[in-house]
Amino acid sequence: MSVSFTCRQETVCFGGTMGFYSHDSQTCQTPMNFAVYQPPQAKTGPVPVLYFLSGLTCTEENFVTKAGAQRYAAEYGVMLVAPDTSPRDGETPGAEEDWDIGTGAGFYVNATAEPWAKHYHMYDYVVEELPALIAQFFPANERQSVCGHSMGGHGALVCGLRNRDRYRSISAFAPIVAPTRCPWGHKIFSNYLGVDMETWKQYDACELVHHYQDDRPLLVDQGSADSFLEEQLRPHLLQEACEQAQRPLTLRMQPGYDHSYYFIASFIGDHIKFHAEYLCS
Amino acid sequence: MSVSFTCRQETVCFGGTMGFYSHDSQTCQTPMNFAVYQPPQAKTGPVPVLYFLSGLTCTEENFVTKAGAQRYAAEYGVMLVAPDTSPRDGETPGAEEDWDIGTGAGFYVNATAEPWAKHYHMYDYVVEELPALIAQFFPANERQSVCGHSMGGHGALVCGLRNRDRYRSISAFAPIVAPTRCPWGHKIFSNYLGVDMETWKQYDACELVHHYQDDRPLLVDQGSADSFLEEQLRPHLLQEACEQAQRPLTLRMQPGYDHSYYFIASFIGDHIKFHAEYLCS
Repeated sequence: MSVSFTCRQETVCFGGTMGFYSHDSQTCQTPMNFAVYQPPQAKTGPVPVLYFLSGLTCTEENFVTKAGAQRYAAEYGVMLVAPDTSPRDGETPGAEEDWDIGTGAGFYVNATAEPWAKHYHMYDYVVEELPALIAQFFPANERQSVCGHSMGGHGALVCGLRNRDRYRSISAFAPIVAPTRCPWGHKIFSNYLGVDMETWKQYDACELVHHYQDDRPLLVDQGSADSFLEEQLRPHLLQEACEQAQRPLTLRMQPGYDHSYYFIASFIGDHIKFHAEYLCS
Repeated sequence: MSVSFTCRQETVCFGGTMGFYSHDSQTCQTPMNFAVYQPPQAKTGPVPVLYFLSGLTCTEENFVTKAGAQRYAAEYGVMLVAPDTSPRDGETPGAEEDWDIGTGAGFYVNATAEPWAKHYHMYDYVVEELPALIAQFFPANERQSVCGHSMGGHGALVCGLRNRDRYRSISAFAPIVAPTRCPWGHKIFSNYLGVDMETWKQYDACELVHHYQDDRPLLVDQGSADSFLEEQLRPHLLQEACEQAQRPLTLRMQPGYDHSYYFIASFIGDHIKFHAEYLCS
């Protein structure tokens, strides 16, 4: 099987290279887009990688355009990889009808129910296929960490917790911590995974902290003025689960901040510094 | 005459307030939008203001979304004000036909030729009306500086050079330094100002350095891979003019950088630090 990818655009940024790429994904059976920021340090040798998983409606562009993360990635010598948030296959019925299901809403699961089962395999895409592509074509060493926002915060927690050997540290901005107990999660999981709620638990961070126990650090930032806080995000559930599982968690409530990229931009420096401690030591 | 404005949205960012506002402009005889970032220091007393003038096709959102400037504004205690790049009056014939004239292309001049003369008064808007509004409704002290990109770099140089008493320092990213000697400038000035090329010179930075002589600092960054460099931007003309006028200019050619906001993001920290020296001392 030949693997290749297309460079759509590359731009110099903070002395490194900001690039936008496409490839034919075997996992999602459709072309997929992703963005990579290579810090200046990548010119002289392989560097560790921080994956950033974005939220509902985003593409691979939002994070690298709006978060101001490249400044810190260049400072610490960390490569940033931002995948798209869903397949965009153009053939899945219903994928374009709602903003919170289908296109832009892959939810980082492997769908098993129709009509999603053919293309919507974002869990395997993020955990397996994309890192293999990065390892083959970019100057990355084997060290990886994962971060994300909202739906992507859920993705970061799930991908991170389930893969102790792949990710050294995990962080999230305003994550959906318990999708089996919120409206977004119910809508998505019932469609992508079907009615057997037992199968949903493999993608619920509050369940996973009990089943994948280790002491890797977790950092979560949550804005107190986030309009999704009470109904969808519910970070106190993760705090309770981590306490029960005796797992370290740093949950920071940030007063006045909302759900936007202005919130992410304000604290992404802390997150990259946090990951760099585990990636660069 | 009563003056008022509408707050469309406010968000916490780096401990300060990122806001988007609208008001009925007397100068442009149409509603105008602008963005303001108030650093945390503005909660306890008035702070200086840095105006950022954006380039062709931009709105008041591009700079505050993509440049990562709030981090530095919060560090130095500088308010950022980003106006829109043109009136959007909906009635000027031809304003929507081309990306480089009319809507999104105000060019920071006071138009005198029809059909632009009614609304297209961006010079007076930026220099007079908007600062008066900021002074009245925001915690700003009397210290101002100005920065801009491309068309807005031209605007920053022109507004800055012509108003020694209003702006303490001037900087630009990839500015159009000699609009009387480039295709964009010829197209705009012949439409907005008419055929008498003598009237164009009041909006040409390379002319103005000879007529408004002082020793305020000028900082210009230019990417060497900018596709507009040779035909439209021509920074060497500013260097020659400043040498002839014995005026200080720091012109930095940045190898490999293009015309994008990734270029701006990479060096906006230097620019805000530069302005803070004159605004905060």
